[in-house]
Amino acid sequence: MHSADSPAPVDYSRVFTSAIDRLHAEGRYRVFIDILRNKGMFPNARCFAGHNGPKPITVWCSNDYLAMGQHPKVIAAMEEALHDVGAGSGGTRNIGGNTHYHVDLEGELADLHGKDGALLFTSGYVSNEATLATLGKILPGCLIYSDELNHASMIAGIRNSGCEKRVFRHNDLAHLEELLAADDPSVPKLIAFESVYSMDADIAPIAEICDLADKYNALTYLDEVHAVGMYGPRGGGISDREGLADRLTIIEGTLGKAFGVMGGYIAADQMIIDVIRSYAPGFIFTTSLSPVLVAGALASVRHLKGSSEERDGQQAAAAKLKVMMAEAGLPVMPSTTHIVPLMVGDPVKAKKISDILLAEYGVYVQPINYPTVPRGTERLRFTPGPAHDEAMMRELVDALVEIWGRLELRRAA
Amino acid sequence: MHSADSPAPVDYSRVFTSAIDRLHAEGRYRVFIDILRNKGMFPNARCFAGHNGPKPITVWCSNDYLAMGQHPKVIAAMEEALHDVGAGSGGTRNIGGNTHYHVDLEGELADLHGKDGALLFTSGYVSNEATLATLGKILPGCLIYSDELNHASMIAGIRNSGCEKRVFRHNDLAHLEELLAADDPSVPKLIAFESVYSMDADIAPIAEICDLADKYNALTYLDEVHAVGMYGPRGGGISDREGLADRLTIIEGTLGKAFGVMGGYIAADQMIIDVIRSYAPGFIFTTSLSPVLVAGALASVRHLKGSSEERDGQQAAAAKLKVMMAEAGLPVMPSTTHIVPLMVGDPVKAKKISDILLAEYGVYVQPINYPTVPRGTERLRFTPGPAHDEAMMRELVDALVEIWGRLELRRAA
Ligand SMILES: Cc1ncc(COP(=O)(O)O)c(C=O)c1O
Ligand SMILES: Cc1ncc(COP(=O)(O)O)c(C=O)c1O
Repeated sequence: MHSADSPAPVDYSRVFTSAIDRLHAEGRYRVFIDILRNKGMFPNARCFAGHNGPKPITVWCSNDYLAMGQHPKVIAAMEEALHDVGAGSGGTRNIGGNTHYHVDLEGELADLHGKDGALLFTSGYVSNEATLATLGKILPGCLIYSDELNHASMIAGIRNSGCEKRVFRHNDLAHLEELLAADDPSVPKLIAFESVYSMDADIAPIAEICDLADKYNALTYLDEVHAVGMYGPRGGGISDREGLADRLTIIEGTLGKAFGVMGGYIAADQMIIDVIRSYAPGFIFTTSLSPVLVAGALASVRHLKGSSEERDGQQAAAAKLKVMMAEAGLPVMPSTTHIVPLMVGDPVKAKKISDILLAEYGVYVQPINYPTVPRGTERLRFTPGPAHDEAMMRELVDALVEIWGRLELRRAA
Repeated sequence: MHSADSPAPVDYSRVFTSAIDRLHAEGRYRVFIDILRNKGMFPNARCFAGHNGPKPITVWCSNDYLAMGQHPKVIAAMEEALHDVGAGSGGTRNIGGNTHYHVDLEGELADLHGKDGALLFTSGYVSNEATLATLGKILPGCLIYSDELNHASMIAGIRNSGCEKRVFRHNDLAHLEELLAADDPSVPKLIAFESVYSMDADIAPIAEICDLADKYNALTYLDEVHAVGMYGPRGGGISDREGLADRLTIIEGTLGKAFGVMGGYIAADQMIIDVIRSYAPGFIFTTSLSPVLVAGALASVRHLKGSSEERDGQQAAAAKLKVMMAEAGLPVMPSTTHIVPLMVGDPVKAKKISDILLAEYGVYVQPINYPTVPRGTERLRFTPGPAHDEAMMRELVDALVEIWGRLELRRAA
């Protein structure tokens, strides 16, 4: 249709194909493994990858950290809600989708973090994106200070806020202070960071960051996604363990990891909750969380407020696995948390190890590659929980040692 | 702490308070009504608003349009998944959260829309935001043509894509063509629109928009959120009813409205699915949909592929309610769909009517105000379904006529 002097029409499929080709070329094209967990027998699961029907595997990379996704109280609460009110909420929070379960869970989460109020979102991702983007718009000229390893959902929220962003080096207080001190004291400021960094397995200096926030009159936003349920006497996260919740402006968490269900939230002063509730498009314009999920999360949060057994079991399992890997000479990364990362440093090798583990040993651990971690720091990330016993750990470590030898990989120093 | 010549520190709570005060001043501060539906008896529900315990109400504004949220097949499928695999997926799609249910549902949705592939998201909101933002980034210099009444989630995705946006007047083909013709033919283009506009109850000229897309070499993105499950012989939406699915590049839908559960998706060529799957942060960096929800949605989509009873019941109910309202002289807006909007034109009056309906008549219909609809077009929006019978409609219309008289509201011309 186009004449000789008109430009060639856009070839859309060439653009799309080359986007995918780039991933293959870098060895980071992702193939999702197809699994079904066996409730009541976690970390056992079935894998549908091969051709001979489902095959039993042991899952070593779940973020259902405490196996609450199969806890009888959680299952019973979800079943009851399913029969009492049905599958979905049928509306946004404002238009028919505000159930009594939502109101109760927000009360429970506010209490968990010692805050006036809490607000539910469809996921932790959306809670970060929607809250940060909205805060930045409500506070004119706000500057946002962001740890360089912050999660993609916080980065998205900060970008979408339209605010200027200052990135500080990971957990580096001196750098953060340098940036704060250089800026106009009269403009609004917000420091956004995580408590447990889930790929590096370290913890932020929360008290010291709050000191800087006080000194420079900044608000604080703490993502406790990899800590809620797992730290503190009631599972309120690292801020609970360290008695710092009241020093943080906003605490954000997920219902999809240690709580074992799905959804996200923030906890804060009622005024801030009201602002986000009233202005955040990602909160307003979407069907609210299914009451079935909300009921399950309610049971899970309540249970973990009163029980430390799961937390203790997880900490014990993580400590044991770290020791066993170190003793075997595997390059386990330093970790002050429940997460056990093993550095590989190459996307192709990381995938290779993972493929062998699955095919030959029935062990499932996903390789972690860019963009989840920086290039050149590709790794395997193990999340032992209360249900991983010593025999499973022994099998895992022996398998890794065998593969490390076979592939001639670098051992620990 | 600050000296006389340094500027006053930011008073954060003043900023937040004034943001909330603005809403009160405009009469659009939102109070969520606290309800629980009674499964098996929809549209009956219980309301927790008053002081004398839960009170029975009839819900007239649910987007669980076909009452699939209480369908026995959906409930049974969710219960089975709950017992088979547990509450949550425990991971992102790439890291442990890809279950066999997800794979099956994506296959089912691809088939529903006659496409190669489909991709699940945690909500319809996220599917729009993530897909449009990512497409815009993958296609350098892309221009996005957007209907002026597009949903907030599409607007967010377009803004976050960083692309230039051209807004065309609602369903106005001449305006759309004018904009397309004025732009450089050699740059990528995308036309984003909805099939059923849920607040105005009208339908886009899909075939004609596809003709323009062909003429100007543009991709098309169609939000069928308020049509999937409800139109077409298999519930594939308006594009199914009109045999146009193969002319659309991407069809987007929700699992949270007519399908009665929660979640969102796109259906498209495998290449496009692969690009979004590989590049969209809102897809990648979040816990995948709970397998319980996915199992429920799978049952719902399958059921509605084979059964037109619910669709027929809904259309009959909507037709009847429109006639009854018109005969009673109520200002029902023209509607070619299952949605029955009643124009009020003032946020305070719309809320007043809704409050009286709830308090005096046990009827729940949410007033729709800015930013969901433009200021000055505030309305009530009724969504009759197969379970709303004639007696309920009679009560509703009589109540409205009484309130219209009491408040001296404008009647239909
Ligand atoms: C630090 C961090 N924040 C937020 C999220 C998002 O939470 P969700 O999975 O509930 O969307 C994740 C992971 O998914 C995360 O690792
Ligand atoms: C047109 C339109 N698109 C998308 C959405 C978002 O879908 P979901 O509720 O699944 O997030 C909605 C409503 O919520 C909508 O009305």
